[in-house]
Amino acid sequence: MATGEKRDAGLLPFAPLIYLAWSDGALSEEEVASLQARLQGDDRLDRATRDALGRWLDPARPPTARALNGLLETIRAHAEGLPEPARRSLARLGRELARVDGARGAAVADALTDIERALGLVDDEAARALLPADAPDVGQAPPPRFEPADVNRLLDPDHPELRQRVLAVLTRPEFALTQDGDIAAYRARVHAWCRALADEGLGALAYPREFGGVHDVTQAIAAFETLAYHDLSVMVKFGVQFGLFGGSIYQLGTRRHHERWLGAVASLELPGCFAMSETAHGSNVRDLETTATYDATAREFVIHTPHQRAGKDYIGNAAVYGRLATVFAQLETGGARHGVHAFLVPIRDASGRPAPGVRIADRGPKQGLNGVDNGRIWFDQVRIPRENLLNRFGDVSPDGVYTSPIASPGRRFFTMLGTLVAGRISIASAAVNASKLGLAIAIRYADRRRQFGPEGRPEVPILDFLTMQRRLLPRLAASYAADFAMNALVRQYGEQAGGDVQDIEGLAAALKAWASQHTVETLQVCRQGCGGEGYMAGSRIPALLADADIFTTFEGANYVLLQLVAKGLLTEYREQFGELRLWSAVRYMTGRAAAAVADLNPIAPRRTDQEHLRDHDFHLAAFRYREQRLLGSLARRLRRRIEEGVDTFTALNDCQDHAIALANAHAERVVLEHFQLAVARTESAARDALDRLASLFALSRMEQDIGWFLEKGYVEGAKARAIRDQVNVLCGEIRPDAVALVDAFGVPVELLPDIAK
Amino acid sequence: MATGEKRDAGLLPFAPLIYLAWSDGALSEEEVASLQARLQGDDRLDRATRDALGRWLDPARPPTARALNGLLETIRAHAEGLPEPARRSLARLGRELARVDGARGAAVADALTDIERALGLVDDEAARALLPADAPDVGQAPPPRFEPADVNRLLDPDHPELRQRVLAVLTRPEFALTQDGDIAAYRARVHAWCRALADEGLGALAYPREFGGVHDVTQAIAAFETLAYHDLSVMVKFGVQFGLFGGSIYQLGTRRHHERWLGAVASLELPGCFAMSETAHGSNVRDLETTATYDATAREFVIHTPHQRAGKDYIGNAAVYGRLATVFAQLETGGARHGVHAFLVPIRDASGRPAPGVRIADRGPKQGLNGVDNGRIWFDQVRIPRENLLNRFGDVSPDGVYTSPIASPGRRFFTMLGTLVAGRISIASAAVNASKLGLAIAIRYADRRRQFGPEGRPEVPILDFLTMQRRLLPRLAASYAADFAMNALVRQYGEQAGGDVQDIEGLAAALKAWASQHTVETLQVCRQGCGGEGYMAGSRIPALLADADIFTTFEGANYVLLQLVAKGLLTEYREQFGELRLWSAVRYMTGRAAAAVADLNPIAPRRTDQEHLRDHDFHLAAFRYREQRLLGSLARRLRRRIEEGVDTFTALNDCQDHAIALANAHAERVVLEHFQLAVARTESAARDALDRLASLFALSRMEQDIGWFLEKGYVEGAKARAIRDQVNVLCGEIRPDAVALVDAFGVPVELLPDIAK
Repeated sequence: MATGEKRDAGLLPFAPLIYLAWSDGALSEEEVASLQARLQGDDRLDRATRDALGRWLDPARPPTARALNGLLETIRAHAEGLPEPARRSLARLGRELARVDGARGAAVADALTDIERALGLVDDEAARALLPADAPDVGQAPPPRFEPADVNRLLDPDHPELRQRVLAVLTRPEFALTQDGDIAAYRARVHAWCRALADEGLGALAYPREFGGVHDVTQAIAAFETLAYHDLSVMVKFGVQFGLFGGSIYQLGTRRHHERWLGAVASLELPGCFAMSETAHGSNVRDLETTATYDATAREFVIHTPHQRAGKDYIGNAAVYGRLATVFAQLETGGARHGVHAFLVPIRDASGRPAPGVRIADRGPKQGLNGVDNGRIWFDQVRIPRENLLNRFGDVSPDGVYTSPIASPGRRFFTMLGTLVAGRISIASAAVNASKLGLAIAIRYADRRRQFGPEGRPEVPILDFLTMQRRLLPRLAASYAADFAMNALVRQYGEQAGGDVQDIEGLAAALKAWASQHTVETLQVCRQGCGGEGYMAGSRIPALLADADIFTTFEGANYVLLQLVAKGLLTEYREQFGELRLWSAVRYMTGRAAAAVADLNPIAPRRTDQEHLRDHDFHLAAFRYREQRLLGSLARRLRRRIEEGVDTFTALNDCQDHAIALANAHAERVVLEHFQLAVARTESAARDALDRLASLFALSRMEQDIGWFLEKGYVEGAKARAIRDQVNVLCGEIRPDAVALVDAFGVPVELLPDIAK
Repeated sequence: MATGEKRDAGLLPFAPLIYLAWSDGALSEEEVASLQARLQGDDRLDRATRDALGRWLDPARPPTARALNGLLETIRAHAEGLPEPARRSLARLGRELARVDGARGAAVADALTDIERALGLVDDEAARALLPADAPDVGQAPPPRFEPADVNRLLDPDHPELRQRVLAVLTRPEFALTQDGDIAAYRARVHAWCRALADEGLGALAYPREFGGVHDVTQAIAAFETLAYHDLSVMVKFGVQFGLFGGSIYQLGTRRHHERWLGAVASLELPGCFAMSETAHGSNVRDLETTATYDATAREFVIHTPHQRAGKDYIGNAAVYGRLATVFAQLETGGARHGVHAFLVPIRDASGRPAPGVRIADRGPKQGLNGVDNGRIWFDQVRIPRENLLNRFGDVSPDGVYTSPIASPGRRFFTMLGTLVAGRISIASAAVNASKLGLAIAIRYADRRRQFGPEGRPEVPILDFLTMQRRLLPRLAASYAADFAMNALVRQYGEQAGGDVQDIEGLAAALKAWASQHTVETLQVCRQGCGGEGYMAGSRIPALLADADIFTTFEGANYVLLQLVAKGLLTEYREQFGELRLWSAVRYMTGRAAAAVADLNPIAPRRTDQEHLRDHDFHLAAFRYREQRLLGSLARRLRRRIEEGVDTFTALNDCQDHAIALANAHAERVVLEHFQLAVARTESAARDALDRLASLFALSRMEQDIGWFLEKGYVEGAKARAIRDQVNVLCGEIRPDAVALVDAFGVPVELLPDIAK
């Protein structure tokens, strides 16, 4: 047309359609042919126009790229100045282009409309493909519907000043995060950071005042989890030194150990290790092989590694900095074994040389946490004074007589481990904070990153995409849920610390496993959500992902913990680590559990109205039902296996997937309960937002496990669909709050990467 | 008893029970009290014995640790030499300990048996807790039921000699893997490795013989995917240089470009870049902003970056080594835009200095692939000769006239991209190989790593645990499935390369997204399965995990690809990338799909017999049903939305989760089909093993999506349960083959980490 303007004048109204027919693969050749046939038979058009159309729409002779481009330019030139409505409809555009009116104009417009419909073009999109709309104002984001600071107070209700103190240290210039690959330099930096934290008195919080602390383990946990916003290496190293190493001295030792060592531990003058795991025994601590044999003549213990794979392994602070280690070993005196006990063993002198008989190897580079110097330690008949036994739960007299306030070796062992539960709780809390940091980065990024958009319109923020919402927002909801649950657990632990913590142990194991798995999955989603940027070290996500991954393994491998949780539920925590009595437990349980599972309301499985779907009581009832039913059926399965003559180990193994499902259902029920309690006590403008988030958490988790609910008849097909739809609806409603909800995490801007600033 | 031997002689038969009552938390204090009451009332026992029992079982005065230990020693001393059956039953043990016989012995044994039962102790386990069984022979592993080499030939049927040639290079001493953290050294090492591979002629395989190749893209892909067993950085760099950079010259250029550059590219004399992505435009390539404006006077193109965020980003080889780049830019001539085209732009001179007007920045450390020097490139009015336009699909004459063999700019764009599909196929294949390497490591480790075991028995390999089997074996099955599917896709591509590859594009996108997601999840499972060892760099898993993660993002972000796949299915690949005509596609589809979904057989949803559950026809029918039904319902949902007046972009977004489910269901159906075909053509002893594995793949995937199948009534509750049980059964059956099945991957022992050797 650009070249044959006059000859093809009658064509002009059809130019947009012709262009669309050839461009962008919008029409196949067959369709071009059928369009052609239709136009040739349309007697509303004159001969010359039909001839011209015949030439332009000949499938055997497609126009050249140049002619097609000319066509577009012609259309655009003629469309210049047309009123907006005309630019937004192919039919009107065609008519206006030809400047025809009256009957002929109407005929042309009708013909165009017919063709458009026949081809299934969506009118205004087709028009926008030709004449892009002026970019509409992107506009200001609506003001948040609540104050992030208000929500922050709900998420971190305890010790706000302490948290701010920690953040103030972490945002000092010397705490600037760098990404050089030099491991030695990184380790040194992390060590210096730990020292700076110790200088602020932050390492001693859990210890009594005389050793620089405030004797409050909940403050220690709050400080620890706040470190997760900075660098997980410094957090883990902090935990190794002040929590595991110092904590073992404090919890397993007695006055003499506290007085001699705690001050130097708290100031980091004395860096130390927590040497429990061995190469051949990680999860199964009870069977570790290092020995501590009492020599009554010398009044010394002899610490010894019987073979290479019995060496202490993965020990933090061992490769470079540690000078003293809490070593777990089998205590022997007078030929009798008394089980695992902890001993303080010097491993290096002040100049850093390994102590005599101590061999240390660097574990070298790891997936993450490379700021922590993990190593291996072997002992060759290393002698330590009798007094170095951490003797709170077991002691040996100078002449070699073993005594303990707890007669049962099994109970003694689990009591000792129980005093260390703070570590597991801390890791669970820290995992939640790591997920919060990841989500703050990914959601802030996705809120601004634009990619793709409707034809002829500006690209949209990727957080407007349903997929992105579905990946990120249920995760956000789960981090909120986990946060509230951890707050409650920490408070409960703070109240019971020093006393009986058996019920807390089960909960700590459940939440540690659940939260760390949530965090690893969430960070993976965050990485993918940030695309290529998320792969760059500068986004902070790679380090978070690599560092946090081990949270699923250390402080108890998740799949081991979840089995302990299931066993604990079967035996109601009474004897949570023993297997011998499982049979009686399941016999008891099979009677009890059958009664506990309420009959199903025959209406509920079918209710699909929004009011019901967002009813917190419905959510909690569903989670409780799942937990109780899994518990009852697990007990029945185990009973059947044991009655068939299978030993309990094998029976448990046969039902391991079931046990793990139960433990996860238990954790999820607890987490939901705490989220709902938190919503119920929220008075601020944030309540609606949190209410929606709690519903999203519950429904998205039900959706994930919808097969189970369907199988048990707890929901029917239509309700499963309705739950899925409601997740979408909630995602859309939460979308505008998303940034405020992550701002509520209180990550200082200095700790956010550029892509999220 | 050790101290009061004589006085308590009658107690001896009860010693094991007393010990168990106090040790290991086996009995609660209440139970000890009730045991006490029961014994005091048992008139089969004499007064002295009852008194002694009363002292030992007083809940208010538990025995000391020392006394308890003495008790155990007494039991063990007396049990020495007892025949095995007596050592395996508490009741018999008690009787034998007391050396009593006749009526009194029987009475004691009866009393003991009663008590044991009442307490719910499992007899032989309780006995083993006291007197550990002699370690039974661990024994030799049974010989594999098939030859791994036979299965290797099925997995890698094409180009076996080439693969061996590549592996021979990769196992040379200079290819030894190290884990130093120095990025510059790592990049240099990887560059040298690439050069060594080029020296063997491996870079040129896809190019014509005159440029050193064999003109066979399937060989290029086989070589590329084999590199995944070594180091993913060298693989990716190899792909950037020979696949993306060289491939773009070969596919988008013409004779003049091939003659001038391909030889130097193939030898790595000329390192280059593939500069497509921009900071602001990653997935949405069509809207990238770099311009190439033709200056007819100078007969040059002017390459220009209009603003900072329009810079080329994440470009491999850019930070250090690249000298020439294939730059994608919007071609403009005479004021008209003709869409994205590729241009060869020198970016550095031979000495490594950036070319005039070219600014380059190093992208610095990344999550993984740190052996590849990714960077950013900005162009400031950089002039290149007209001939540097890669002009196969569009050219500009000296005087500035644009011509193209493809008139439609949309079709032209997608045709250009289509020629680059080899990259996507290669990444999919490589992802599968990365998952195979991860599984080889994790399964070999889990086969030997022992932890926990039945009371008094040796610890068992962790691969004997159901959880570990359930995590690793379905993944193993999926890697097999994906491998067979990729073989078929590569063959098909080899046959069609150079011709129309539209149908392959959809499949490549589907399999790339599906396989890379599978790989990332699998490596995560492998990491956790190897516990702390899996976190050590020496296990190779951290690098695999960090490196492969980006496979879900580059060569097309998975969630974008899956949407394209869904659109392609809706429009039957005819116009897979256009949205304009979606309406007509869904109108057509809603009619067709309704007819295509077969009626459900009313019996099948309830069949739970093993024969049916392992029937490959059942599996495939289920996967086909899911795909067809998701397709039909997606079409209906879209149609409804569009009829309501929503634009196609928004309509698609509203149904994004549905579209992605469809695309995954499609990929999974294709993958299953190829697995089944592979089983059907297997003649060797491996057939049964592969048959089970194919069943495990199908059933474990159905289990994962069981909510959908239940919701649609395709299975009923009992069948869902049966599928879950059958997955467990299959895991148990496959367990003995697991090591042979990963040995079949043919990873050379030199490339296995120590933990898997």
